[in-house]
Amino acid sequence: MVINAMERIMKDLLDEYKNRLQLSCTCDECLDDILALTLNKTHPRYVTDSDKIMYVKAEFVDKQNMTSLFVKLAECAKIVSDKPTCKMTTKGE
Amino acid sequence: MVINAMERIMKDLLDEYKNRLQLSCTCDECLDDILALTLNKTHPRYVTDSDKIMYVKAEFVDKQNMTSLFVKLAECAKIVSDKPTCKMTTKGE
Repeated sequence: MVINAMERIMKDLLDEYKNRLQLSCTCDECLDDILALTLNKTHPRYVTDSDKIMYVKAEFVDKQNMTSLFVKLAECAKIVSDKPTCKMTTKGE
Repeated sequence: MVINAMERIMKDLLDEYKNRLQLSCTCDECLDDILALTLNKTHPRYVTDSDKIMYVKAEFVDKQNMTSLFVKLAECAKIVSDKPTCKMTTKGE
């Protein structure tokens, strides 16, 4: 089993800040779109055991590192919010 | 749900070629180490649905793209094979 620790870290970050990102849609589909887009722009950090995620997480206690992650997340949230593709927002088109 | 399509593609590639990579150990721990190391050196391609993995896979029908993946895999296989850290190879130390 291999896990990208950034997946967990970014998901936690999105869950924490989704209400402050001024998202036009907060359905699961849009949140997944934001997450996938952000992770594609983030260097992967694969570990072989979920216990090891905390070692990667520890690096992001540093405020500058965490801020750069947050900037990526906010940029991707804007891209998805500007043009959401979920069923809820496209059903009227 | 988000999935890194490269995870599946690289795992399939490793399964196909593991017998030809002259690995010093082929236990699950070492194979995971190779996979994690390779994925950390590979640009992630996250999709929001496992059905979409095939679109990413289609890009690697191109021989040059597939070869560059294989080169990464072989390099990481050598790193792990030179210094395996699994229980089986370290229990005598």
